[in-house]
Amino acid sequence: MNAYIITIGDEILIGQIMNTNGAFIGEKLSHIGIPAEYMVVVGDDEKKILAEFKRAIEIANVVIVTGGLGPTHDDVTRSAVCKFFDTDLVPDEEVRKNIERLMKRRNYPWTQAAEDQALVPCKATPIHNQHGTAPGMWFEENGKYFCVMPGVPYEMKAMVENFVLPRLSKLTHGMIIRHRVLKTTGIPESFLAQKLGDIYGLTDGARLAFLPSPKGVRLRITAQAPTSEEADQKLDEVEKRIRDKANKYIYAVGEIELEVTLSELLNDKQKTLAIAESCTGGLIGDRLTNIPGSSSFLLADVVAYSNEAKIKYLDVPGSLIQDYGAVSKEVVEAMAAGVRKTAGADIGVSVTGIAGPSGGTSEKPVGLVWIAYADANETVSLKFNFGDERIRVKERASQAAMELVRRRLLNINIAEQLSTD
Amino acid sequence: MNAYIITIGDEILIGQIMNTNGAFIGEKLSHIGIPAEYMVVVGDDEKKILAEFKRAIEIANVVIVTGGLGPTHDDVTRSAVCKFFDTDLVPDEEVRKNIERLMKRRNYPWTQAAEDQALVPCKATPIHNQHGTAPGMWFEENGKYFCVMPGVPYEMKAMVENFVLPRLSKLTHGMIIRHRVLKTTGIPESFLAQKLGDIYGLTDGARLAFLPSPKGVRLRITAQAPTSEEADQKLDEVEKRIRDKANKYIYAVGEIELEVTLSELLNDKQKTLAIAESCTGGLIGDRLTNIPGSSSFLLADVVAYSNEAKIKYLDVPGSLIQDYGAVSKEVVEAMAAGVRKTAGADIGVSVTGIAGPSGGTSEKPVGLVWIAYADANETVSLKFNFGDERIRVKERASQAAMELVRRRLLNINIAEQLSTD
Repeated sequence: MNAYIITIGDEILIGQIMNTNGAFIGEKLSHIGIPAEYMVVVGDDEKKILAEFKRAIEIANVVIVTGGLGPTHDDVTRSAVCKFFDTDLVPDEEVRKNIERLMKRRNYPWTQAAEDQALVPCKATPIHNQHGTAPGMWFEENGKYFCVMPGVPYEMKAMVENFVLPRLSKLTHGMIIRHRVLKTTGIPESFLAQKLGDIYGLTDGARLAFLPSPKGVRLRITAQAPTSEEADQKLDEVEKRIRDKANKYIYAVGEIELEVTLSELLNDKQKTLAIAESCTGGLIGDRLTNIPGSSSFLLADVVAYSNEAKIKYLDVPGSLIQDYGAVSKEVVEAMAAGVRKTAGADIGVSVTGIAGPSGGTSEKPVGLVWIAYADANETVSLKFNFGDERIRVKERASQAAMELVRRRLLNINIAEQLSTD
Repeated sequence: MNAYIITIGDEILIGQIMNTNGAFIGEKLSHIGIPAEYMVVVGDDEKKILAEFKRAIEIANVVIVTGGLGPTHDDVTRSAVCKFFDTDLVPDEEVRKNIERLMKRRNYPWTQAAEDQALVPCKATPIHNQHGTAPGMWFEENGKYFCVMPGVPYEMKAMVENFVLPRLSKLTHGMIIRHRVLKTTGIPESFLAQKLGDIYGLTDGARLAFLPSPKGVRLRITAQAPTSEEADQKLDEVEKRIRDKANKYIYAVGEIELEVTLSELLNDKQKTLAIAESCTGGLIGDRLTNIPGSSSFLLADVVAYSNEAKIKYLDVPGSLIQDYGAVSKEVVEAMAAGVRKTAGADIGVSVTGIAGPSGGTSEKPVGLVWIAYADANETVSLKFNFGDERIRVKERASQAAMELVRRRLLNINIAEQLSTD
């Protein structure tokens, strides 16, 4: 089976917005083994849309269309669909109820436009829109599948996940296909693969993909089964096998950032945090304060860029800097303990390093970063090399610092080197 | 005239990367009045590519193709192009020299692959690639224009700016079209438009677009003229007219961030900076330390999230916080003066506010932000409301704080309220 993805909207043709819907659908379809052969953007023009529908259904078994269905829109897509399938619009009770529910929640009066949105092409199966008023439409004709959805990304995404993918994977494989992502950090891809060993083949109908990024490796489990429940059960099985071998590296299930996990953990444990940054320049504080409620645990983040600032704000002895240099085990540990003490926090975490492009020496090259953790009982530190690209060094160092705190909060051994590759 | 944009690459069809090339080309073509009717992504498959070329040239006057030309690539695009135009490959001396230049710079030996890259279809005008080895190709046939470029974004962009746009605008308008962007911040779009008044009509063949964003309004000047020199002269004229009325709001020409401008200014004036952040959580420090060499002016950035941290690190009197609250004129000024003094910097800048979603009151709502500047001669502060979206509040506040420093360094009056809308 193959697919043809059509995105409708003038604003994409003039480069005002990116075709993120096409990318999302292309990715999801590729996961269930239905490659997209074409991705086409066409303007809000009925004649062109109809010509595109015609070409698409000739080339592909699965046609996915988004855009041009909103209530304020010219609604050119729906009328093109009706012409294409030679069908009329009829009121749909379920769709009408959904629109009523949404209008009521927003305190909007019922209007003719709302009445109009409750109409669905007679030949279509409506697709429930949990986030908006415009329903999706699903057609099956001559062994071809034709799906039309609104262009609003989160409305479309929910329809794809809850309706389109289960249905298509059932059709193409006689199976439901489900995914789950486990986010890991602090271990390079090759080490993680080695640790997991031969868990791949253990569960029939499940597979595992390694997706590396500067912040860590995402593990994507894919499971096939005749029902959702059985597929989920396989996902659970594989997740358990992974956790048996590499649990400590997993900080989240699903697309969740480490700062969210760490914020929740600090709140759960009712621990306060103080940060001392140098080369990361405020990035750790910025990431943590993006999370609402971070003021409940974050007391202070001192970016001590100069040596004087390290002495003044963090009580780092000047002699340490002189003897060992600002980027050293001795100084990073003094920074973590110092910020913890001066801010009056339960935990201190610190980073000092050389982000580049200049400032490196043969002994202390660009990319060298020291990270330390301090609490009432211990002060520990780790040494890294995060490469020679400034922004990347900052990103990877901020991730490693947060991961160090997460692991110590969970009493995970950190003797093994942390790395985010 | 109309256009048809073709992007070649399997990695886009599976959603691994976004079709940013299509968006870029669509935007640029729309600026010179050649609307894209279609944007199509097709895989690395010669048969499909040829079919797409055929359709494109039937529908549009201008066909722009990117992707599939790299040295390690299957090179399916070039052979498809040769078949489509029924032409052979011939060596091109200019192209060969360019490849030699790049190989030498990278210390690569000359290879058969390099030799092969110096071949260009006989019927094509090669397009110089300043950043890579694969040349672009330009065809004119029966009043249609067909352009093929590599998929590497910065290679393609330079070709579009330097070759494709001048040529197409000359063809379509008998005119060269040029653009220039002036970046402003600290003034809402409507105020800026009012200030500029009727400068629009003053220069024949030039026009002005207002492009608002959370960080400020970009002013895009477009000029048409028979030659590049004349077009640039018109851009200069309009820029001068804008600067006569609103110079103080302009912090950059071209797509340059405020942190770059501010870094250069601080280095030029040999002034050191210390920052005291609260609701922005480290974002100002993060943005400034993204710029290489920021350690030459940035001494420290204290994110004093708790009241105790404001007292401890910034010498803010506890009584001020008690009497006026942490988000107040009194406290923000004490923070700026305090961080300046404790860090031993020439300039102190501070931010305190309520980023939300909670923590607001009717008197001090979410989005309220105070920003202050302190040097040896003065301490000044400004009050803002940056709305109710946490990340947006942080972004706008960081921009306003940097802009306040920029204006004071240039002795610009700040009595007029700064705003980034």
